Amino acid sequence: MFERYERLAKQLGVDHPVLLAPMDLVADGKLAAAVTKAGGFGLIGGGYGNEAWLREQFAAADGARVGVGFITWSLSRQPHLLDVAIEHAPAAIMFSFGDASAHIGKTKQAGILAICQVQTAAMAREAVDSGADIVVAQGAEGGGHGVACGTISLVPAVVDAVGDRVPVVAAGGIADGRGFAAALALGASGILMGTRFYASEEANGDGEAKRRIVECKGGEETVRGILFDIVRNNVWPAPYTGRVLRNAFSQKWAGRERELLQQLHIEHSRYMEARATRQYDMAAVIAGESAALVSEVLPAGTIVANVVREMDAILGYTSYKARRAPSASI
Amino acid sequence: MFERYERLAKQLGVDHPVLLAPMDLVADGKLAAAVTKAGGFGLIGGGYGNEAWLREQFAAADGARVGVGFITWSLSRQPHLLDVAIEHAPAAIMFSFGDASAHIGKTKQAGILAICQVQTAAMAREAVDSGADIVVAQGAEGGGHGVACGTISLVPAVVDAVGDRVPVVAAGGIADGRGFAAALALGASGILMGTRFYASEEANGDGEAKRRIVECKGGEETVRGILFDIVRNNVWPAPYTGRVLRNAFSQKWAGRERELLQQLHIEHSRYMEARATRQYDMAAVIAGESAALVSEVLPAGTIVANVVREMDAILGYTSYKARRAPSASI
Ligand SMILES: Cc1cc2nc3c(=O)[nH]c(=O)nc-3n(C[C@H](O)[C@H](O)[C@H](O)COP(=O)(O)O)c2cc1C
Ligand SMILES: Cc1cc2nc3c(=O)[nH]c(=O)nc-3n(C[C@H](O)[C@H](O)[C@H](O)COP(=O)(O)O)c2cc1C
Repeated sequence: MFERYERLAKQLGVDHPVLLAPMDLVADGKLAAAVTKAGGFGLIGGGYGNEAWLREQFAAADGARVGVGFITWSLSRQPHLLDVAIEHAPAAIMFSFGDASAHIGKTKQAGILAICQVQTAAMAREAVDSGADIVVAQGAEGGGHGVACGTISLVPAVVDAVGDRVPVVAAGGIADGRGFAAALALGASGILMGTRFYASEEANGDGEAKRRIVECKGGEETVRGILFDIVRNNVWPAPYTGRVLRNAFSQKWAGRERELLQQLHIEHSRYMEARATRQYDMAAVIAGESAALVSEVLPAGTIVANVVREMDAILGYTSYKARRAPSASI
Repeated sequence: MFERYERLAKQLGVDHPVLLAPMDLVADGKLAAAVTKAGGFGLIGGGYGNEAWLREQFAAADGARVGVGFITWSLSRQPHLLDVAIEHAPAAIMFSFGDASAHIGKTKQAGILAICQVQTAAMAREAVDSGADIVVAQGAEGGGHGVACGTISLVPAVVDAVGDRVPVVAAGGIADGRGFAAALALGASGILMGTRFYASEEANGDGEAKRRIVECKGGEETVRGILFDIVRNNVWPAPYTGRVLRNAFSQKWAGRERELLQQLHIEHSRYMEARATRQYDMAAVIAGESAALVSEVLPAGTIVANVVREMDAILGYTSYKARRAPSASI
C-alpha cells in the first residue's frame, strides 16, 4: 500500500500524494502553492481556460512545484492554452471531462506528467491507452461536474482496469484522513480533494460560500444536476452533471429543467446578478458530499497535515517507514 | 479499528462482522445459514412481509444463528409479523426504510438486537434515539432501495453522529476485501453486503439474474430510479428510489415516468409476465454498483472467507490478533 503511495509521491516530486483538485477559479496560484509547500501537490484550476488568468496564477504560485488542470472539452476549443500552460513548465497537466488524447502527447513530449480524471473503468482504459501517466477516479459524491458512480466501488474497479499500468488517485467524497485511508485500502495510490480545499483560507472563494460548506451537515444537502448550468448558460455535454449545495434556487426548480429554460430570459440575468452579489440562496456553491465532514475553514497546509496525520493513525504509515528504513541513520 | 470489529462480532455472536443484507426473497433461510456457518452473520430477507414464507425460511435456517430484516414502512402495515419473527428468536431484527421506533422497543424487550439501516446522519440519530443497538449506514451505490449519499462520505458522517453510542456497519458498494478494509478505515465496525451475496450459489435467485451481475462491468451499468417500482405497481414513499441493473426496459423509459404511468394498463402485465418468465431485458435485476467487482458466482462461505482474507492482507487483522494475545496459549 505504501509502496504505491511513495511511488506516486516521488513521481509528483512531493512528500505526500495528496492532490488539490484543479477547481476552476477557486484553486488559484496561491492555494496551489500552499498545498505544495505543505507536502501535497497543488494543481491550478485552469478550468474552461482564460489565458490572462492562467498567467497570473502561475506567477502567483511563485515557483512552487505545481500543476494545472483543464476542462478537456473546453480546452479542445482553444488548444493554444495548452501551449501557454506548457510554457510555464508545470510538473503535471490534468485533463478532466472529455477525450484528452489530442493533448496528452504534446504534454508528455514537454516532459510534463499527464493526469486524466475519469468517471468509469472504461474511461480509465481509454485514458491510459492514450498515454495518461496517472488516472484520477472521480466518484459521484464529488463537488462539481462528474458522472454517476460512487467512489467506494469505482476506485477498485478502476484499479482492476488500469492499476497494473498507472497509479490511480481517488477523488470524490474524501475530506479527512479516514477517507484517505479508505482510498489507500481500495487500491488507490493517493487522493485528490476539492471541497475540503475550497473551505481553506487560501482558496479563491467567497467567505459566505465557504461558510455554507462548513454548515452543510450531510450529503443529502447537496444535489447533482444541470439546473445551475442551464441558468448560467453553460450546459455541458453528456454525460456530465454537477454537484452543488442545495439552496432555495435548486429546491424551487427541482425537476423543472424545461420550465427553467423557458424562463431563461428572466432567470439568467437574475442568476448572474446573484452570483456577482454573492446571494447563495440563488447562486450555486459548487461542493460535494464531503462538505458533511468539513467543520472549519483551515489553512491549506493544515488540511494537508491533518489528512496525513489522521491516515497515519489509522494505517500506520510512520511505522511502515520506520520498519522499512530501520538503519537509515547509521 | 479491530477493537470495534471484535466488539461487533461478539455482539452478533459470530466471528466476523460481515452481514448478509436481508434481501427480499433472495436472502432466504438457506443463504442466511450459509453466511453464519462461514463466520459471518446471515439475515433472512423478510422484505415486505409474508408470514408463510417467513416461517419456511426460519425452518430452512435450521437453527443457525441468524437475524431477519424487514422493510419498515411495509411492516408497519402488518405489525403482527414482528411477533412471528420474535417467536423464532432471531439474534437480531433489522429495520430498513422508515420510522422503526414503534418496533424497536418490542424487539429489545424480547432480548433481540435491533439493527436500523439508515441513509443519512440525521436518520442515524433518530434511530439511535429510538433505541437501535446497531446502525447500518447505506450508501447510494447499494443495490435495491436507498437514498442519495455515497458510502465514502456517509459512513464517517454517521460515525461522527452516533459512533460513540452504537457500532456503525457500512453498506453499499462493498463486494470484496478492499471495500471491507475501506469501511473499517472510515470508522465502521463491519460491513453488510447485498449484491455480492446475490451472486452466490445459495441465493434464492435465478441463474440468469446472477449471470447478469457477474457480467456487469461498471457502476454506470446500474441505475437508480423508480421505473421498476412504477411498472410493478409498487411505488415507495419518498425519499426512496431503487438501484437495478440497466436493461432495455430502463433505457427505453428513462426520464419518462409519466408516460409509463399512462401506459401502465399495458406495461404492468407485460412486466409481470417478463418477471415470471425471467426475461431480464424487461424485468429488473436488483443490484448495486458493486456488481462491477463481482466476477464469479461463489458459495456464500467462500465469499465470507475471501473478504476476510483480503481485508486481513490489507489491514493486518491476523497480526493484530497475534500482538494482542501473544501468550494466550501459555
Ligand atoms: C468548486 C469546485 C470546482 C471544481 N472545478 C473543477 C474544474 O474546473 N476542473 C476539474 O477537473 N474538476 C473540478 N472540480 C472537481 C474536482 O476535480 C474533484 O473531482 C472533486 O472536487 C472531488 O470531490 P470532493 O469535492 O468531494 O473532494 C471542482 C470541484 C469543486 C468543489
Ligand atoms: C436484490 C436486493 C434486494 C434487496 N432487498 C432489500 C430488502 O428487502 N430490505 C432491505 O433492508 N434491504 C434490501 N436491499 C438493500 C441491502 O440491504 C443493502 O443496503 C445493499 O444491498 C447494500 O449494497 P450492495 O448491494 O452494494 O451490497 C436489497 C438489495 C439487493 C441487491
